[in-house]
Amino acid sequence: MCQACHGSDGSNEFSSIPNLKWQNQQYMVQQLQQFKSGQRQDKTMSKVAKLLSTEQMESMASYFSKGEEK
Amino acid sequence: MCQACHGSDGSNEFSSIPNLKWQNQQYMVQQLQQFKSGQRQDKTMSKVAKLLSTEQMESMASYFSKGEEK
Repeated sequence: MCQACHGSDGSNEFSSIPNLKWQNQQYMVQQLQQFKSGQRQDKTMSKVAKLLSTEQMESMASYFSKGEEK
Repeated sequence: MCQACHGSDGSNEFSSIPNLKWQNQQYMVQQLQQFKSGQRQDKTMSKVAKLLSTEQMESMASYFSKGEEK
């Protein structure tokens, strides 16, 4: 799901979408929680984050923070 | 000013602060504009962004998107 926009290793070619490759893990979890709570808003991510449990957020943040292709 | 938190080349060691190294330039300008307008909020960045002109935002986003140490 995340990979469609952010790329399989977290880097992408869309200029208005952030690269997540090697992004700080804790920062990404915080941002996902803010999208879920409505504190931060984005057309796409506000919807996506509502589907995620804290455990799933941590798992995705861990994946992108390592910047490995899978 | 930016380098105190984000590092001289955009990478940093603070887990709750995003790496900006090689981040998409257009995305960074958009986020700075959102911090300035209040659409996105952060204790630090909401204040910092209010000090920046669009030209300065573009210049900083260009600097960090290149990921070069200076």
